[in-house]
Amino acid sequence: MRATVLVRPKPGILDPQGQAVESSLRHLGFEVADARVGRLVDVELTTDDRDEAQAQLERMCEQLLTNPLIESYEIAFGAGA
Amino acid sequence: MRATVLVRPKPGILDPQGQAVESSLRHLGFEVADARVGRLVDVELTTDDRDEAQAQLERMCEQLLTNPLIESYEIAFGAGA
Repeated sequence: MRATVLVRPKPGILDPQGQAVESSLRHLGFEVADARVGRLVDVELTTDDRDEAQAQLERMCEQLLTNPLIESYEIAFGAGA
Repeated sequence: MRATVLVRPKPGILDPQGQAVESSLRHLGFEVADARVGRLVDVELTTDDRDEAQAQLERMCEQLLTNPLIESYEIAFGAGA
């Protein structure tokens, strides 16, 4: 079973990468109000049980994939390449 | 209008970050078949026209947000925090 974990800086957390992207987009002539940069992890799980997959992914996020102090995450199934 | 750009390494392109995540997840006891790491950019556009937003985002991807040689992108509306 395939899933995508989306990791974003929490609101209020400084995001220098996002600021750089926003500034560069403006310099290129794009009208943007805000830009934030996060990361994504596509995970191919061996389980095909959706609930089990959700539980495993949450543990992965807590143990490795995110820093819960400064990042929030979202789990999406069936998305991605 | 808010949109999220998902950027992934193309299939076949070496992804050392994904390999490290996959290896670490296995060491933690998770059964994963594959992991790939990409990035995401949440963009708040000033336009509210969906087609115009799509066109702008595609130009942003070509000019700044992605390296088309090694990365593919996907544009999602209405997602994200």
